[in-house]
Amino acid sequence: MSRPSIPKGTRDFLPAEVRKRQYIFDTIRGVFETWGYVPIETPAMELLETLLGKYGEEGDKLLFRILNNGDFLAKADREALAQMDSQRLALSIARRGLRYDLTVPFARYVVMHRHELSLPFKRYQIQPVWRADRPQKGRYQEFYQCDADVAGSDSLMYEAELVQIYDAVFRKLGLKVRIKLNNRKVLAGMAEVAGVADRFTDMTVAIDKLDKVGWEGVRAEMEARGIGAEAQQRLQAMLEARSVEALAEALAPSQTGRLGIEELQSVLAYLDGIELHNALLFDSTLARGLSYYTGCIFEVVVDTDAHPGVRMGSIGGGGRYADLTGIFGLKGVSGVGISFGAERIYDLLEELNLFPEGLARTLQVLGIAFDEATHRFAFRQISALRQAGIAADLYPEPVKLKKQMKYANAIGVPWVLLVGEDEMKTGKPALKNMHTGAQSAHTLSEILDILRADA
Amino acid sequence: MSRPSIPKGTRDFLPAEVRKRQYIFDTIRGVFETWGYVPIETPAMELLETLLGKYGEEGDKLLFRILNNGDFLAKADREALAQMDSQRLALSIARRGLRYDLTVPFARYVVMHRHELSLPFKRYQIQPVWRADRPQKGRYQEFYQCDADVAGSDSLMYEAELVQIYDAVFRKLGLKVRIKLNNRKVLAGMAEVAGVADRFTDMTVAIDKLDKVGWEGVRAEMEARGIGAEAQQRLQAMLEARSVEALAEALAPSQTGRLGIEELQSVLAYLDGIELHNALLFDSTLARGLSYYTGCIFEVVVDTDAHPGVRMGSIGGGGRYADLTGIFGLKGVSGVGISFGAERIYDLLEELNLFPEGLARTLQVLGIAFDEATHRFAFRQISALRQAGIAADLYPEPVKLKKQMKYANAIGVPWVLLVGEDEMKTGKPALKNMHTGAQSAHTLSEILDILRADA
Repeated sequence: MSRPSIPKGTRDFLPAEVRKRQYIFDTIRGVFETWGYVPIETPAMELLETLLGKYGEEGDKLLFRILNNGDFLAKADREALAQMDSQRLALSIARRGLRYDLTVPFARYVVMHRHELSLPFKRYQIQPVWRADRPQKGRYQEFYQCDADVAGSDSLMYEAELVQIYDAVFRKLGLKVRIKLNNRKVLAGMAEVAGVADRFTDMTVAIDKLDKVGWEGVRAEMEARGIGAEAQQRLQAMLEARSVEALAEALAPSQTGRLGIEELQSVLAYLDGIELHNALLFDSTLARGLSYYTGCIFEVVVDTDAHPGVRMGSIGGGGRYADLTGIFGLKGVSGVGISFGAERIYDLLEELNLFPEGLARTLQVLGIAFDEATHRFAFRQISALRQAGIAADLYPEPVKLKKQMKYANAIGVPWVLLVGEDEMKTGKPALKNMHTGAQSAHTLSEILDILRADA
Repeated sequence: MSRPSIPKGTRDFLPAEVRKRQYIFDTIRGVFETWGYVPIETPAMELLETLLGKYGEEGDKLLFRILNNGDFLAKADREALAQMDSQRLALSIARRGLRYDLTVPFARYVVMHRHELSLPFKRYQIQPVWRADRPQKGRYQEFYQCDADVAGSDSLMYEAELVQIYDAVFRKLGLKVRIKLNNRKVLAGMAEVAGVADRFTDMTVAIDKLDKVGWEGVRAEMEARGIGAEAQQRLQAMLEARSVEALAEALAPSQTGRLGIEELQSVLAYLDGIELHNALLFDSTLARGLSYYTGCIFEVVVDTDAHPGVRMGSIGGGGRYADLTGIFGLKGVSGVGISFGAERIYDLLEELNLFPEGLARTLQVLGIAFDEATHRFAFRQISALRQAGIAADLYPEPVKLKKQMKYANAIGVPWVLLVGEDEMKTGKPALKNMHTGAQSAHTLSEILDILRADA
């Protein structure tokens, strides 16, 4: 084997990339913890019976399935084999699949561990998920999700809290965003009021395209989906409402619509008097992932006023699902949660140059020696620095100075400790500042002070 | 679906478990970084051509294979199908597998990214691996490995450094261990000197059983494997040597043996004058994983003098492999590395009660309110605490005090903030210490001071 590679849609990460990703995860984790969320972890492999049917027909196709070990054909579906039916055969030769998201495993987790948990249970989870999507720029088959969810309470306080979490995380990351808020009941109310309650899904599919095709396109889509001109007009009028109040009157005839408005008002009341760094916008056209959301819906996009020229889809989303665990046999547990699009956030911070400086640097000093004896001496010096908590290294051999300095430059170390025969005799190695080029001899304890001051 | 479960051999982690695991990983990571190692990450899925043949025949069987997506039967091996040959069929319907360890992916990584790396490249990697081993107590199909390896240098300084890393990590974890050291060349030298160089593998397989079966058992095993009585006697004499010096003379006739002795002496010379917290022991009977190690070999076991009664196998191991990347077409890159058995370390810290106190606790204060108005007020108070970086939460509804206090006890929060009508009027909520039961009214800024002092 001469040219190794990795599966399409997967990635290796270089050290600098790992540190930048870690910075994003740590920032998100820190806010989650401050807001009272606790970490859980679930296995990469789930039983397929847990995953199948939870993400729609399309989702089922995108699951990675693990071939059963051993003589898997012994228990294979003979009929499926005879008919060369891959889809059916798969059910008999693969009983496990890779996690597709963090929400379904969380619902399963709550059901399995309900006797060990106190409700409301506020958990966060930062783990990779796998999807057999066609790989393309910015879309991977293995990627991290960062989720916070609350299970076991229908208090709208949590919707308010999740808005604050979005606000706090993006503030810390230096990214100005718009947090969009809507409510599924508001959308349902609109459909009722416009007399197209039976066309609810058609309506939301059309609305979801607004960003891409504009109002004309949305109306054409509605037309094609059997929503008449009058209903289109009434819907457009409601969808153009820019505030909850403006919509409240129009939705008054619908009980569901009124409930949606009340929920939104309740969330906003919690946030009353609390300063947000980012804009919180009511957006009645927000209709994402309606398949399982039942109440409030969130979406976060970049604030293009603050960051002009940036083109990027949503970098976060979430909502309320009144029946989180019913599918696993536990009724009456409401859930609400949000997710951060860590991969896109990474690309944005990179594009906008928002990663803190010095993130990639951990090594503070590299020792350089000139012969066997000074190399052994330098190893003890470097060891002493490490014992004191300084990230330090020693070039592995006393080769030519030029080669060692080239390595020091390549790895970007800020200080070099030069240990020659004189330095060994006096016990004062020369410390060179790689940035300024300045160099001076010091005792180890002085060096420790200098490096600590620079950490 | 009524009773969800997870695949055998996999685990969910509760919040307290995640934190304890994180503590172990963070400790190891901190030492790795202090010693100049940088993090990389590789995908969970590797191409099977990368993995197959690297772990022996047994290892190939333990790989988890990912079923190709879509109509995988269309490209299936017809002959294998006709013969119902699972093993052969698998090669045509699964091109990816789950990572089995971190060493092979690292070798692949070094080859693929060699133009982006400066050698010697010191990397660490803390990621899960998957093995289809029969699940049993303490053995899982998904578990974490924590590895540090150096690629691109044959300096024995790194062997010394890796001993220091073991020493530093276990010192920080409060676990007293014995770090065992041997060298494959020493074992090869013994075989030569005893005249059984052609029975090298038989010899090491027999030696590997010493802990379990004692000398009598080892000699019986040797006998069965065609190693005669005289060779057995000579081997036992050498294997009972307790120091490198004691063995040097016996190995003098073997060039390989002399080289092994020199390497060991060189490693020990680096460590000369450097204090270790744990015992470093030369152990000529150490013969682990000889399939790919070529030089020094390490193994770490619990010091049963310091921790009497503990029964646990090795909790770390590693060694030198002179040709790390040859299998991927890149010659001349030597590797040396170590691994920490994080799962076993976890069990040990638990058994010995060595996890730091307060690890599981992050939430500092829980707000409790008595009606709608005080609940809104409390939300703002809790929000202010969070903005100041205090991990704080609010019970989601102003239900009966008893129910809220029950929740506070269940989650083990150390402080409760009680907000009633009086407290709202005075702006001085009551802060209750859940440990002592003491309770007193304070302004928010006083509360902040109290909680910060207790953090």
